[in-house]
Amino acid sequence: MTEQFSKKAEAWSARFSEPVSDLVKRYTASVFFDKRLAEVDIQGSLAHADMLAHQNIITAEDYAAIQKGMAQIKEEIAAGKFLWLLDLEDVHLNIEKRLTELVGDAGKRLHTGRSRNDQVATDIRLYLRGAIDDICGLLRELRLALLTLAEQHTDTILPGFTHMQVAQPITFGHHVLAYVEMFGRDTERMQDCRKRVNRLPLGAAALAGTTFPIDRHHVAATLGFDDVCRNSLDAVSDRDFAIEFCAAAALVMTHISRMSEELVIWMSPRVGFIDIADRFCTGSSIMPQKKNPDVPELARGKTGRVNGHLIALLTLMKGQPLAYNKDNQEDKEPLFDTVDTLTDTLRIFADMAGGITVKPEAMRAAALQGYATATDLADYLVKRGLPFRDAHEAVALAVRHCVDQSIDLSDMTLEQLKAFSPLVEADVFEVLTLEGSVAARDHIGGTAPRQVRLAIAYLREQLG
Amino acid sequence: MTEQFSKKAEAWSARFSEPVSDLVKRYTASVFFDKRLAEVDIQGSLAHADMLAHQNIITAEDYAAIQKGMAQIKEEIAAGKFLWLLDLEDVHLNIEKRLTELVGDAGKRLHTGRSRNDQVATDIRLYLRGAIDDICGLLRELRLALLTLAEQHTDTILPGFTHMQVAQPITFGHHVLAYVEMFGRDTERMQDCRKRVNRLPLGAAALAGTTFPIDRHHVAATLGFDDVCRNSLDAVSDRDFAIEFCAAAALVMTHISRMSEELVIWMSPRVGFIDIADRFCTGSSIMPQKKNPDVPELARGKTGRVNGHLIALLTLMKGQPLAYNKDNQEDKEPLFDTVDTLTDTLRIFADMAGGITVKPEAMRAAALQGYATATDLADYLVKRGLPFRDAHEAVALAVRHCVDQSIDLSDMTLEQLKAFSPLVEADVFEVLTLEGSVAARDHIGGTAPRQVRLAIAYLREQLG
Amino acid sequence: MTEQFSKKAEAWSARFSEPVSDLVKRYTASVFFDKRLAEVDIQGSLAHADMLAHQNIITAEDYAAIQKGMAQIKEEIAAGKFLWLLDLEDVHLNIEKRLTELVGDAGKRLHTGRSRNDQVATDIRLYLRGAIDDICGLLRELRLALLTLAEQHTDTILPGFTHMQVAQPITFGHHVLAYVEMFGRDTERMQDCRKRVNRLPLGAAALAGTTFPIDRHHVAATLGFDDVCRNSLDAVSDRDFAIEFCAAAALVMTHISRMSEELVIWMSPRVGFIDIADRFCTGSSIMPQKKNPDVPELARGKTGRVNGHLIALLTLMKGQPLAYNKDNQEDKEPLFDTVDTLTDTLRIFADMAGGITVKPEAMRAAALQGYATATDLADYLVKRGLPFRDAHEAVALAVRHCVDQSIDLSDMTLEQLKAFSPLVEADVFEVLTLEGSVAARDHIGGTAPRQVRLAIAYLREQLG
Amino acid sequence: MTEQFSKKAEAWSARFSEPVSDLVKRYTASVFFDKRLAEVDIQGSLAHADMLAHQNIITAEDYAAIQKGMAQIKEEIAAGKFLWLLDLEDVHLNIEKRLTELVGDAGKRLHTGRSRNDQVATDIRLYLRGAIDDICGLLRELRLALLTLAEQHTDTILPGFTHMQVAQPITFGHHVLAYVEMFGRDTERMQDCRKRVNRLPLGAAALAGTTFPIDRHHVAATLGFDDVCRNSLDAVSDRDFAIEFCAAAALVMTHISRMSEELVIWMSPRVGFIDIADRFCTGSSIMPQKKNPDVPELARGKTGRVNGHLIALLTLMKGQPLAYNKDNQEDKEPLFDTVDTLTDTLRIFADMAGGITVKPEAMRAAALQGYATATDLADYLVKRGLPFRDAHEAVALAVRHCVDQSIDLSDMTLEQLKAFSPLVEADVFEVLTLEGSVAARDHIGGTAPRQVRLAIAYLREQLG
Repeated sequence: MTEQFSKKAEAWSARFSEPVSDLVKRYTASVFFDKRLAEVDIQGSLAHADMLAHQNIITAEDYAAIQKGMAQIKEEIAAGKFLWLLDLEDVHLNIEKRLTELVGDAGKRLHTGRSRNDQVATDIRLYLRGAIDDICGLLRELRLALLTLAEQHTDTILPGFTHMQVAQPITFGHHVLAYVEMFGRDTERMQDCRKRVNRLPLGAAALAGTTFPIDRHHVAATLGFDDVCRNSLDAVSDRDFAIEFCAAAALVMTHISRMSEELVIWMSPRVGFIDIADRFCTGSSIMPQKKNPDVPELARGKTGRVNGHLIALLTLMKGQPLAYNKDNQEDKEPLFDTVDTLTDTLRIFADMAGGITVKPEAMRAAALQGYATATDLADYLVKRGLPFRDAHEAVALAVRHCVDQSIDLSDMTLEQLKAFSPLVEADVFEVLTLEGSVAARDHIGGTAPRQVRLAIAYLREQLG
Repeated sequence: MTEQFSKKAEAWSARFSEPVSDLVKRYTASVFFDKRLAEVDIQGSLAHADMLAHQNIITAEDYAAIQKGMAQIKEEIAAGKFLWLLDLEDVHLNIEKRLTELVGDAGKRLHTGRSRNDQVATDIRLYLRGAIDDICGLLRELRLALLTLAEQHTDTILPGFTHMQVAQPITFGHHVLAYVEMFGRDTERMQDCRKRVNRLPLGAAALAGTTFPIDRHHVAATLGFDDVCRNSLDAVSDRDFAIEFCAAAALVMTHISRMSEELVIWMSPRVGFIDIADRFCTGSSIMPQKKNPDVPELARGKTGRVNGHLIALLTLMKGQPLAYNKDNQEDKEPLFDTVDTLTDTLRIFADMAGGITVKPEAMRAAALQGYATATDLADYLVKRGLPFRDAHEAVALAVRHCVDQSIDLSDMTLEQLKAFSPLVEADVFEVLTLEGSVAARDHIGGTAPRQVRLAIAYLREQLG
Repeated sequence: MTEQFSKKAEAWSARFSEPVSDLVKRYTASVFFDKRLAEVDIQGSLAHADMLAHQNIITAEDYAAIQKGMAQIKEEIAAGKFLWLLDLEDVHLNIEKRLTELVGDAGKRLHTGRSRNDQVATDIRLYLRGAIDDICGLLRELRLALLTLAEQHTDTILPGFTHMQVAQPITFGHHVLAYVEMFGRDTERMQDCRKRVNRLPLGAAALAGTTFPIDRHHVAATLGFDDVCRNSLDAVSDRDFAIEFCAAAALVMTHISRMSEELVIWMSPRVGFIDIADRFCTGSSIMPQKKNPDVPELARGKTGRVNGHLIALLTLMKGQPLAYNKDNQEDKEPLFDTVDTLTDTLRIFADMAGGITVKPEAMRAAALQGYATATDLADYLVKRGLPFRDAHEAVALAVRHCVDQSIDLSDMTLEQLKAFSPLVEADVFEVLTLEGSVAARDHIGGTAPRQVRLAIAYLREQLG
Repeated sequence: MTEQFSKKAEAWSARFSEPVSDLVKRYTASVFFDKRLAEVDIQGSLAHADMLAHQNIITAEDYAAIQKGMAQIKEEIAAGKFLWLLDLEDVHLNIEKRLTELVGDAGKRLHTGRSRNDQVATDIRLYLRGAIDDICGLLRELRLALLTLAEQHTDTILPGFTHMQVAQPITFGHHVLAYVEMFGRDTERMQDCRKRVNRLPLGAAALAGTTFPIDRHHVAATLGFDDVCRNSLDAVSDRDFAIEFCAAAALVMTHISRMSEELVIWMSPRVGFIDIADRFCTGSSIMPQKKNPDVPELARGKTGRVNGHLIALLTLMKGQPLAYNKDNQEDKEPLFDTVDTLTDTLRIFADMAGGITVKPEAMRAAALQGYATATDLADYLVKRGLPFRDAHEAVALAVRHCVDQSIDLSDMTLEQLKAFSPLVEADVFEVLTLEGSVAARDHIGGTAPRQVRLAIAYLREQLG
């Protein structure tokens, strides 16, 4: 009876009177995308076999045979010589069948006390744990690259925008640090998610646990899980962690999309605040002069992809009765593509941060437009005793006058300024300078160069 | 200068001082997924070249050379011998480069008066038009298969459910026709979408049109487009049609998910209304007795995938300024996967409809539970003069009595029934039978077997 | 027994042994949002009663009483005197109860042969049909307003952007027409959707039809429906039309978001292409100089709201078994809010189009940056015999030279230009002007002022 | 100049030459939905004023006046006497204006050193922190109610389903605990989210910080924030926390939808595992016998609503340049509705858990169908030395035989069983009982009554 797989090509087919059709096979098989789980599948199987041996459910000889077989399978896969068969549905049956070919009955004993339901749940968690660790590493690299950029521009002044209208002068270093904060929160979220990923479903078997005297904590320890999933029905049907990961990933991509939007606008010739190195840009098939910021544009577009995967998974789980249903097989492709998108995008952004050339003159010229220091003038009046609302009103009228005359606030004489408030004195011109304005916002979180330097130091220490 | 591609590997690179990095190449290239556009890309190029020759923009010799080269390229692709290069970014440059290798300067003249922006928009529309036609064919097959199933069960009675509580007896043929209606509306939507797909963007060039004396209506006629896109900026940046298609596809999958939900519930042993042929089911790696309705479960899960792609595309386009941005490259994978998912799912469902075995006894037994003919009793009282609201009240009290006694309405004696309304006479027992109940709903859209047969005849004629 | 409503406050409660809790009442009631259906509910009830009388299911006297009662109810609602009761769950029971108070038994006969399931489906369709007609009217107004704007700027030149880099010169009228095209497709989609909205579900009763001799075509004719829904199970459970409407609405908002993005960028001081009238802008509570384009920003944000509603409805319907389930009550709020959002946004945009001030000098200055006529130079070389790819290469080298020298293409001497291609002659300078460039794109869909004027004429005729 | 508000009705209007139109006012105003922030707005303002006084930016008298004014405003709001004006846009200006009416110049000094941008960010965080705390409380209540239900049914056996096919016998208590686990993870996620909500944006002012010597840590301490937001640009533009909350909420609703699906199926007469108390059900307007599980159905439908809000917020933030844009005003309604939906649903579910009547006989009858102990037989053979795969094969053949004969595994004689494996002995019949099957799954997470009791004890302790 050892040749059952080769005869029947299905681990479960003895109950069936008719073979599965080819179209159905293709429709229901997952091997072409879940084979990326091969490594963690073997890792999980070895930990399971180790425990089975430890608990005397299988013999030491069987365990040794399984270890030997798996070692060879790993080599075959690494060498690209492993034959993946559609007929064997998924990564799990492909590996188990090969193991049985290699080591006989020991291979058939591997599946004792487990089911594909808890096996696949374990595999995905192992895979995702690794992916999260990679992503946290890439977030760190990106944050370090941005810190370096910020450091070069703690004193470079550009206009801060709200509503894409000039608001107040800020420093470019300060602006860059806003993204360092965002990617910092992303890292926190990934780590919080990791806690919930890192619990072991194995031992839940099909849905109810198993009649064998397994030791789940032993397996958890071998595989580095923090805890075991405490309810077998939940363990096999839970995909929260994948959804939580995709939600965290959607936020990373949202931040990437905001940064991309700014890079694209900043590189547009009317703005001209930055240039991006040629190696991150492409040209046009028809317009010989074009240099396009393709990388940030494409990354911005990829936000949609990750939002879509999040919705795919939420829709998938909506209204599913317990425990495992085949619907769940659809969890993998969205998850894998989310991991790939995030990994590639973070890597390329960490690299691109070093390819951004800042054009301080263009930034400064822009900051001198749009009455960026109007708030400073209002604050000046407040400090001289005017209630803020009245100061705001006085400056608004001054700005309206300047707009009508096409001049800047600092173009007015002291006399003219006094017309809007008698509290104005000669020292007002200091607060109307860009440097005076940014330097004055000198508290934690503020744009003053001193604060930006402190923030960079703090973040560098935090990032180790 | 003819060897520019081989030297530079990029159609646009003369303006650049630094090559694109490998990671960037991989990140921005699309050739690995857009090569499925090869056939329509060649079709579009030939129509363009035909027009260029017709307008004397290129010579007849050049056109002949392009035709010959393209014929060879098609053969190479069909034979799997075409060498797709990542360095050449996308399907368009890969084919153009090979053409130039094969036919020299004529190949370099092909791109006259067009841009990749209008070229890719044309390709996607050609591709999607074909996909929609396939899908409409599959929807027709599925509807025919469901009609056949309905025809076999015009008189088979089962309980109609609302809120998953027994509502009124219905015929199974009638129930199946509900899905025929849904997939009918899906077909309408696909055809409405096709109208907007079938307009030619070519001629928009990069975004503004071209200085060459092109004839867009000529190209449209060659390629079977109904009209030309009437604004060049819109033509290159419009992806409405892809979103509209995905929205229509999401509705198809929503219907598939509802039908799947019912199939899964009906096949659950407690319900037991149907069996699905073994070839559409799979088993369990641990539980030897299992036969699982994997196909409908997986299809239900794939609803999420298509909803996700719809959101991906909507997110992609949100807030994009005109005209073309690289973000748009992200339109292809969601669109392609939606087409594939829909095509596979419809094909397998059309097939599976013939693999459904109905169990009329189980259905009948269920219809006898749950006071399914209570409404008939109320209607009976109304026909004897009681206002509907009072009849409803009387029957509700009768049902409550039956629930307390664990009996059915038809188990009560005439005497007992009269206690709830003196209007009840001996003929009441006719309306309390399942057959009497369904036969009485004999108007267009009603569940009476006579109406179901009329509906089938009507639909058969409509489907040709 | 006529006082059942006042005693029990529920149309269905005789079967129950325990009243619904207050929290449950609030949770399950819909009257606070579905009362906006009051008018169409009454319209539908009157058409139903008319048919019942016509078919002798109720008497002429009952019908007259119902008409009289409903007339009074309409007045009470219009005058704000109608008392909406949470205890009566929804708009339907509130009106029916009041009717019975006013006209007695005739009111209790109104519900003969129908159910809330087909009643609410009819109401929503009537409501949505009206909303679609309003929206099509507003789309027309917006398109007319944009045509007026385009007409004023058929010859105003600005840089066309791709990737937010200067691509080729275009005319502002041409740019505006791109949006006229988009909103034109939106109108088509709304009208296609309307066809599927405008089918009558009434007569489906709870799910299976009714035992009364109803005439559904009569009701359809009275209410202006094109056809009746042809399957009762489908009729009560179908919400496709709401989803299709929200998908079409999401595309309208996507276009609004793209236009908003451009308005916001154009009004940013570094770009300065337009100004938006003060009445569409707001200021800042802290920065006295600010004038923010709030309307387009907010409209851009509202894209999310409509995408969200679309997903809400798709999620709602996923996996619902037939026929009606209470889940469906959740269809209303997303639908109503989508209608409101679309209606308000289109109205304000139609108004705002007249409040846009174009700044042609800023546009022209921008068009002179960025080598916008490089494609024209390449086309010039092609017309002199160079294959397009070689021409592209030659111009790319020329642009790179100009970038290095910080000059424009037109700043080079004939001598210098000849260094890049000996085919260049003195007439080259004509094609390097902005006016020459736009005028040369003179085919259907192209940016030439002549074409823009033709397109406006065509659209004006189409819009009647 | 103190009457500026009453004259101009806008805090920022001195710079404008034309008033905002009525339609624009309605479109851009938020007061009708953001007035729910009134309490936290006042709380935040008082903490700001306290710090301003502490830093000598305003006088102690001004602070006292502000305190007095705010106390009165709180009373007015509580008494429903506060006049909310559309003309004053939002909750912030409405309150500030009233304060100025009440206390004059002190009121105008309140806005010193802050902006609406950081003010509204602070308000939302305060509001959401409170909402999260409420939700965690309700999750706890729901978990406790489910624990009580589980406790009553540690030994009640029902079939565990996978693919809605009978899989293995489980205990109902075990099944209920699966949901306790899910809502436990939801609580963790809410608490993780709370960490990121509980950071203070105030002090960021418009976007760059302020020139006043503020003490942000002082304000943070007053308001109970764990930390201050460390970058002012990020502080005013960050809405991550709202998205993270909605994602966590979508998971709660996903769990609710799964539980609802099961409740609805379990209450369907063909299954009949449970009954839900009348007070959570409603009836039908046409079918007098109906009792519908409206609450779980409606809750299942509300999943869509929350998924939709999540997408609304993600779409909203996609591609927004820094810092604050008016788009962000659209964050409130989705967030508020998500909070309301979650709060109501959890409250009603906690209540409904006590209204579930379990029908153990129906469950038991179902568990005896479908060869639920087939895995036990396979495990039995494995324990006698057969490799698992061979045991699986042998039992599959035995099940197929039973299906053909319409008998159960336990209906076979020892003789017949031996035909499938000679290893079977008389003790096999023990493992084929339901009680034997569940008791044997006696490890952490398993379905054995002993384990369920241990799990309940563990969870009770955890919940305090």
